[in-house]
Amino acid sequence: MTKGLVILSGGQDSTTCLAWALSKFDEVEAITFSYGQRHEIEIEQSTKIAAAFRIKHKIVELSGIKQTAISNLLEKKEKLDINEAHKINPELPSSFVPGRNLIFITYAAIYAYGKNIKNLVTGVCETDYSGYPDCRMDTITALQNTLNVGMEANFIIHTPLMYLTKAETIQLMQDLGHLDKLALTQTCYNGVRPGCGKCPSCKIRANGFEEAGIEDPLFKGEIEE
Amino acid sequence: MTKGLVILSGGQDSTTCLAWALSKFDEVEAITFSYGQRHEIEIEQSTKIAAAFRIKHKIVELSGIKQTAISNLLEKKEKLDINEAHKINPELPSSFVPGRNLIFITYAAIYAYGKNIKNLVTGVCETDYSGYPDCRMDTITALQNTLNVGMEANFIIHTPLMYLTKAETIQLMQDLGHLDKLALTQTCYNGVRPGCGKCPSCKIRANGFEEAGIEDPLFKGEIEE
Repeated sequence: MTKGLVILSGGQDSTTCLAWALSKFDEVEAITFSYGQRHEIEIEQSTKIAAAFRIKHKIVELSGIKQTAISNLLEKKEKLDINEAHKINPELPSSFVPGRNLIFITYAAIYAYGKNIKNLVTGVCETDYSGYPDCRMDTITALQNTLNVGMEANFIIHTPLMYLTKAETIQLMQDLGHLDKLALTQTCYNGVRPGCGKCPSCKIRANGFEEAGIEDPLFKGEIEE
Repeated sequence: MTKGLVILSGGQDSTTCLAWALSKFDEVEAITFSYGQRHEIEIEQSTKIAAAFRIKHKIVELSGIKQTAISNLLEKKEKLDINEAHKINPELPSSFVPGRNLIFITYAAIYAYGKNIKNLVTGVCETDYSGYPDCRMDTITALQNTLNVGMEANFIIHTPLMYLTKAETIQLMQDLGHLDKLALTQTCYNGVRPGCGKCPSCKIRANGFEEAGIEDPLFKGEIEE
């Protein structure tokens, strides 16, 4: 029996990964990290998404990131300017949380280790997040090796969205038969539902649906399960 | 100016690393992780050690390890039988906390990133901890690469004790002129001070001092700073 653990943020990418994992593995669980991100709504939506897929869902409270990382994403400012440069490396966006995905995937592996789950799934992709070095394939490959050497394990980190555009990801979700679940996902940087429609994140989502020629179920209201 | 960050557990190995780092770098800080380990005394002693060396000391409360890892070290049982096998991998000791050093070093890197510290120092060694795969050189090399790719950084993870015996580590501390600081370190698995003298950890320490032909300052009472 194959088992997979999906890192679920509550956004459309990780939710698509969840649908993908359900099509690949016999048993799927999700893990969500609460780390002091700007909006608790992401955690709430991830709970609804896991419930909609009827899978086991682990929420882990991470206290360490806020105590160690410098990032605008961790500050409760009124508005987040994602065009601002990062305080430490001006070539990266201010929203970059250094090492965040390394921490998430390592904790996912630690949890998976205790449950004999071999497959880890994450929605990182190079196309959308070229400014985030922890989202690129080189990092994932290096981390997979580190986890396997450091834990004497055989984890495979799956990144089904790595080279897909936003439109292709939406198309994938439709092909998997779970487009309606995207109504539960949280995209807006300003933390409003269904979305402010003005922030860069809302715009990227809208463009993706437009390019895919698919109507966003988010604006038809949440599905009830 | 060179800057180093030492992962300080409050034990004799990491304290020796602190003395080593002070001999190598212009500016040294220490970081200690509180993660639900059996004895809070380790955190208390690390604070005293940092004060004795007069260096900046960051304590980070990690909530994630207890929520994800299976290990006897995280259980508040009366006695810890370190000869027991780990629940998941019977070839490893029950005290193995999967991924612990990966998490510690990654958080240390995240903290160091925000302070432009390039040198990370950890007291892991292959000789004492052959049962812990996250202590071996292969893991450290892989993790250094992962951190540098994932954070676009140039960290060097230093492991000055990697191939030293316990006696050689004690000798190193004497050569560095800080033998007295070992009076502040916490070794005993049972969390008592100066030490129960009977647990495997106390015995390894006693053997190390005997082999080095050096008297353990721990049993002369704590130094006052």
